[in-house]
Amino acid sequence: MTSLQLSAEEEAVEMFLDAAARGDVRRVSELLRGAPSLINRSGRSGWTALMLAARNGHYEAAEALLSHGCDRLSVNGSSQSALDVARFWGHRHIAALLAGAEGVPPTSDLHPRENYFSRETLDRLSAKRTDTVWLEERRSQPDSVYLLFSDLSPMVGPAQEDGGGAEQVETKLCRLGYEAVKDLLQKPATVLIFLGVERRKQPSSSSSSPSSSSPAWFAINTEEDAGELLKRFGQKKCCFTKTANRDLLKLSEDEAGVVAQARAVLAWHSRYSFCPTCGSGTLLEEGGYKRSCLSADCRSQKGVHNTCYPRVDPVVIMLVIHPDGDQCLLGRKKIFPVGMFSCLAGFIEPGETLEQAVRREVEEESGVKVGSVQYVSCQPWPMPSNLMIGCLAAATSTGITVDEHEIEEARWFPRQQVMDSFLGTRPAFTVPPRQTIAHQLIRHWTGMNSNL
Amino acid sequence: MTSLQLSAEEEAVEMFLDAAARGDVRRVSELLRGAPSLINRSGRSGWTALMLAARNGHYEAAEALLSHGCDRLSVNGSSQSALDVARFWGHRHIAALLAGAEGVPPTSDLHPRENYFSRETLDRLSAKRTDTVWLEERRSQPDSVYLLFSDLSPMVGPAQEDGGGAEQVETKLCRLGYEAVKDLLQKPATVLIFLGVERRKQPSSSSSSPSSSSPAWFAINTEEDAGELLKRFGQKKCCFTKTANRDLLKLSEDEAGVVAQARAVLAWHSRYSFCPTCGSGTLLEEGGYKRSCLSADCRSQKGVHNTCYPRVDPVVIMLVIHPDGDQCLLGRKKIFPVGMFSCLAGFIEPGETLEQAVRREVEEESGVKVGSVQYVSCQPWPMPSNLMIGCLAAATSTGITVDEHEIEEARWFPRQQVMDSFLGTRPAFTVPPRQTIAHQLIRHWTGMNSNL
Ligand SMILES: [Zn+2]
Ligand SMILES: [Zn+2]
Repeated sequence: MTSLQLSAEEEAVEMFLDAAARGDVRRVSELLRGAPSLINRSGRSGWTALMLAARNGHYEAAEALLSHGCDRLSVNGSSQSALDVARFWGHRHIAALLAGAEGVPPTSDLHPRENYFSRETLDRLSAKRTDTVWLEERRSQPDSVYLLFSDLSPMVGPAQEDGGGAEQVETKLCRLGYEAVKDLLQKPATVLIFLGVERRKQPSSSSSSPSSSSPAWFAINTEEDAGELLKRFGQKKCCFTKTANRDLLKLSEDEAGVVAQARAVLAWHSRYSFCPTCGSGTLLEEGGYKRSCLSADCRSQKGVHNTCYPRVDPVVIMLVIHPDGDQCLLGRKKIFPVGMFSCLAGFIEPGETLEQAVRREVEEESGVKVGSVQYVSCQPWPMPSNLMIGCLAAATSTGITVDEHEIEEARWFPRQQVMDSFLGTRPAFTVPPRQTIAHQLIRHWTGMNSNL
Repeated sequence: MTSLQLSAEEEAVEMFLDAAARGDVRRVSELLRGAPSLINRSGRSGWTALMLAARNGHYEAAEALLSHGCDRLSVNGSSQSALDVARFWGHRHIAALLAGAEGVPPTSDLHPRENYFSRETLDRLSAKRTDTVWLEERRSQPDSVYLLFSDLSPMVGPAQEDGGGAEQVETKLCRLGYEAVKDLLQKPATVLIFLGVERRKQPSSSSSSPSSSSPAWFAINTEEDAGELLKRFGQKKCCFTKTANRDLLKLSEDEAGVVAQARAVLAWHSRYSFCPTCGSGTLLEEGGYKRSCLSADCRSQKGVHNTCYPRVDPVVIMLVIHPDGDQCLLGRKKIFPVGMFSCLAGFIEPGETLEQAVRREVEEESGVKVGSVQYVSCQPWPMPSNLMIGCLAAATSTGITVDEHEIEEARWFPRQQVMDSFLGTRPAFTVPPRQTIAHQLIRHWTGMNSNL
């Protein structure tokens, strides 16, 4: 094992990687015949042959590497697997090849890129919000879809009819047409917002593209009597959801994404109908995405002010990892169901970065100090308009002092206990439901290298 | 190069890594004498010996590896260098060793972990906000510091006296004492907020810890005549800043962080003095972090509502990378200085993830489609209360169609042109100032592997 030997070997590796990067399938196979162990080697850049083929869109080279038994799970210096690389660069056919392969855990386990409330089935077409003629015209189209909210709760029905599918869907939104709601639209207390148009699925092309002629979706919040509305519109077993943070988790992923948008905007109208700068009434504009003060002298009329636009409240939610890398910190609030523990969380304050908010909140709530913070993924949470920003946080201290105003208990849970609780074999605690980003963060950590 | 040879070699690598992970300095040196090429090898986990020593807090092993010429810049599968690992796990002495070593570019170049407006010199002690007795008592302490704002502009003076230092500091905040401001505090239009207490520097311990007896900082926004105030408080050459997004960039990093917090909260009071739910007046509470409606019947009195708390507006700002990996998309608004191009940006809407907001904004403003999105870092931007969330975005299309309401031009710039513009050698465009996250994002990209 002299440096000369290593260097010759390194040369072979680079030759092999170069062939893969160029998509030269013949050369790749030739080199592998001579030295099968090349298959999973990475070069100076930390990229394997499979990643390079995925990077440059060489489908056949990727296929050849897989047929030689290539390890598809190794990651490069940017923490990306070949699948991530293919996705990052938009090579969907290669991503499908890599994701579809047998024996690969669903990527969502390692990289929860899509959380509940995060799916976009509509294109917001925000440029159309100021096009009052277009909006007016779409409102009365026979294919337009109206969702009805009463006191911020959507009207829903049982979902059984949809049958099968892997998703656990218990509830679906009641979709009404223009004829059904047109008299409601006349009532002064009704709030109408434009949600967007359906993205048209184009299986042959690389992306779905919406068009302004696709069906438009709207949401209505009404103050009419809920019982009357149900009598009038409800098919059998329809109702308005009762407990938002429980009942809204029963929708399909597609519908949850629509509700996240609709409920957050409707909640803003419900709580912000007066101008906070001068106390005057306001006028709803731009398809429901703006409220302008009715007083001509108001300061909010000069320049652009956030008072006129819907509010989004950024929240950090974090899984804190013990310095030994093998335990995580979970807490419980009094209002949690018995036995449930979850991630700590808190609002980002003005003038803070999300990393600072993580450190402050963890120390305030549990007394534990945090060093490094890593963003994982985020989730809209329409209760009423939060953006949950999910992070991993490395603890630099271990002693716990709970702030009893915030949580009732916080504990370090060993990785094995967490796994057991997920599997339900010997649960040490109840895991938060899969629709929460807390669930996804904990799951993400259990899937990671034990060094982290 | 048979698989047997590789396997023996791999075994030696694992032995070496194990010794480093255990901090066995003697064994590390012994193995390196036999096979010097081991020094930079990484094992199956993608971690080098230096990373493992850094992970487990073995200072002497790290030192020994460095003395053997170890490459300190390579990264593991989580994209962390040994320095990142040491920081992540809170081994500050090792982090200092790794960061201080000659020839290492400042990490901020690769990982801009601290942006302007992001330094925290104060501990917010948020639990003290409801402790009116404590707050009252701190207000009149002789060591308490007051910052004076007029129409959201802080009173500042020239910074020359501070001399030297690597930072380009042109301006410093005027710090007033209780005696100077106590009559201002009596005026009904004055808004007072508690910022926090100074973090006490403890060089001997591993972290600075604040104490409730450290000097407290407050910010005041007053409606008194600015000229009178300057006459009364201003040392020579003092003034209130004129153009926030230019003049607030001239402060030291320490003071910029304080201003980010103070200005965002004061701006909220200035624009949200009426209850948006019912239009009544509101009462300032909790050290300036809450406003409660004065009407007893208001819905905002039941439960917790965001109407009572300061607003933070999350914004995505992104550098879009061309599918060839070697160009980036920059745009310019009409209001930019001549020749300046910057990253695209836009507000996150209700119901969106940050990744979706990136895709929507880029497509709306430039017509370019984006696939993968990667979070890099964030920055509070007190104009008046934004949180800029900085990302890299991989384009999946290249044709540009500019939305002229938003930007006047957008272009792909080759990496070399971007580098030249940074260096000022043959600038193709003017780079945004270093205090902006746009600058840091562009710099981050130019420092990355050309595969990304
Ligand atoms: Zn007004
Ligand atoms: Zn009120």
